[in-house]
Amino acid sequence: MKSSDKRLLSDLGEFGLIGRIRERFRVPEGVTGIGDDCAVLPQRSGRDTLVSTDMLIEGTHFLRADIPPYRLGWKSAAVNISDIAAMGGSPTATFLSVALPADLEAGWMEEFLRGYAELSGRFGAALLGGDTTASPDRICINVAVIGECPCGAARLRSLAREGDLVCVTGCLGDSAGGLKAILEGVERDADVQMLIDRHYLPLPRVAEGLRLAATPGVHAMMDISDGIGSDLQHILDASSGGRAAALGAKINLAKLPLSEELRRVCARLGWDAFQLAIGGGEDYELLFTCTPEAEQALDVPHTVIGEVTGRFRVKPGMTGREPEMTDIEWRGADRQFSGFDHFRKA
Amino acid sequence: MKSSDKRLLSDLGEFGLIGRIRERFRVPEGVTGIGDDCAVLPQRSGRDTLVSTDMLIEGTHFLRADIPPYRLGWKSAAVNISDIAAMGGSPTATFLSVALPADLEAGWMEEFLRGYAELSGRFGAALLGGDTTASPDRICINVAVIGECPCGAARLRSLAREGDLVCVTGCLGDSAGGLKAILEGVERDADVQMLIDRHYLPLPRVAEGLRLAATPGVHAMMDISDGIGSDLQHILDASSGGRAAALGAKINLAKLPLSEELRRVCARLGWDAFQLAIGGGEDYELLFTCTPEAEQALDVPHTVIGEVTGRFRVKPGMTGREPEMTDIEWRGADRQFSGFDHFRKA
Repeated sequence: MKSSDKRLLSDLGEFGLIGRIRERFRVPEGVTGIGDDCAVLPQRSGRDTLVSTDMLIEGTHFLRADIPPYRLGWKSAAVNISDIAAMGGSPTATFLSVALPADLEAGWMEEFLRGYAELSGRFGAALLGGDTTASPDRICINVAVIGECPCGAARLRSLAREGDLVCVTGCLGDSAGGLKAILEGVERDADVQMLIDRHYLPLPRVAEGLRLAATPGVHAMMDISDGIGSDLQHILDASSGGRAAALGAKINLAKLPLSEELRRVCARLGWDAFQLAIGGGEDYELLFTCTPEAEQALDVPHTVIGEVTGRFRVKPGMTGREPEMTDIEWRGADRQFSGFDHFRKA
Repeated sequence: MKSSDKRLLSDLGEFGLIGRIRERFRVPEGVTGIGDDCAVLPQRSGRDTLVSTDMLIEGTHFLRADIPPYRLGWKSAAVNISDIAAMGGSPTATFLSVALPADLEAGWMEEFLRGYAELSGRFGAALLGGDTTASPDRICINVAVIGECPCGAARLRSLAREGDLVCVTGCLGDSAGGLKAILEGVERDADVQMLIDRHYLPLPRVAEGLRLAATPGVHAMMDISDGIGSDLQHILDASSGGRAAALGAKINLAKLPLSEELRRVCARLGWDAFQLAIGGGEDYELLFTCTPEAEQALDVPHTVIGEVTGRFRVKPGMTGREPEMTDIEWRGADRQFSGFDHFRKA
């Protein structure tokens, strides 16, 4: 923590804290930001508003002792802006709610805001409001993000079609490998440090999402937050909606993009790179489907990992409510993979 | 709790819970709601989007043993929609983030959603997204609300002028009296029960806000969440912005609208009704300023409690960052009053 402000929030006070937040963020022209009952943003015809929100709880999503506040601030903004990227939109504004223990040092929050501002600033998202309140113990964070895209252009999960290719940007599993390294206290050589950085400092794929959404033949899109085992299933479920014959997918394990760093760390420590890549999540890469013709024309770096198949099977688990993660064939695998459920034990 | 579902969230699973949430809320035509990375709402020229967000933490804002989940759901939606009312707007949609302990009974969440849906439904606000996650122990709730109003029509806090009358809708202090009754375990006669209901089941003044915003000469407006001692100060600070001579206000204590129930309970138990009305908060009534001419023409039930004065005093505390609550003269009072600061001790 670089900031040396050791004052406690109970001394700084709620309005002192809000003052510090306001100092860090510039409000764009024509917009009302922090300081009123609501933020006010003009609407434009021919545009759609995009909205998403994510909650981070100390003890569930992060451990205060493990994550530097700058990185937590960065990540809190990044995971939300990634949802805008996943629709093919541009982020406009974020709204930050924080519940903080009164005995937290003001310097912790300064560092959190510095990371939050650094990431949001890179993507042009202003902080236009939120809530500051006291927590009895754990830090709770909620970010709501607003973005926009041309009317009707949002890349929904429900747009996948039989015959589409399944593609991803970047590499998979680095973030999950970084988390595993943190939790297991692995010694931090350069490879491990890269995985940990990928876990704490994800970069939402906003520019890539915009280019993909502007490419004809790119259909369903989402960001990878729970692992492709779970996230691809969401696309299949959403795209099967209401039709008698549901969609499935065949994924070729040999095609999964794994970083050299992840391969080396897994080889050294005996970790299962496929499990990390498929079940781990938090990569915040884009998962999308497109026609083979569109794939040929893409100007966004990506990897084709499989294809969407039709008339695969219809099972009770395909209602969209309790996916059973068995509608994807993992070619080259000797077992099933599944994604993450926040309430279920592994 | 009416629901008899004793299953734990760890058995229902995250997607089971999301399924139950989706069942309760209808998505309006032309809008994408729960189930994608973002909600998608069309923009219209000539309209402004309003956004606000509020966080409720178990142990800070509510005690699980004290508040029935139906009432907590109601209140979570109400306090947010009240922020839209305070701008003179109409609520469009809400976004609900919840962090829940895995050993919470599914029936608790069912009841929470029933209250949330009942209140939002009354004001036409669809639930279009959110986040469901696990909490190690405490329940954390964050609601973000989206609304709209005609372009430029939002009633900002910064619009108060010298010579304006200070007005409120409804009665003040009931909610604070109800909270005090709960915390002190006061016997619940009809008067006390009414105060408790006002605390748990606030009704945002959406219709009143719309009528006030449409009335020429109605200037600043906000909802009363922290008590008028604090909230009126916010209006004065915001309306003094950048001017050498700041605004003040003179409030006549004898004019404060107090319910018969609050008067009787205070008389019986020796409570200070003025302290509850001024410092207690959570009334979710509207506090607004308007010209004397506009006040004559208002078709919204209200009480004039004082006036905005000019060139009152300029003090260090009037920077908008750390209001000292001393720029308001409380006529008829023998002491100062102040509002609520989430991090400071009383």
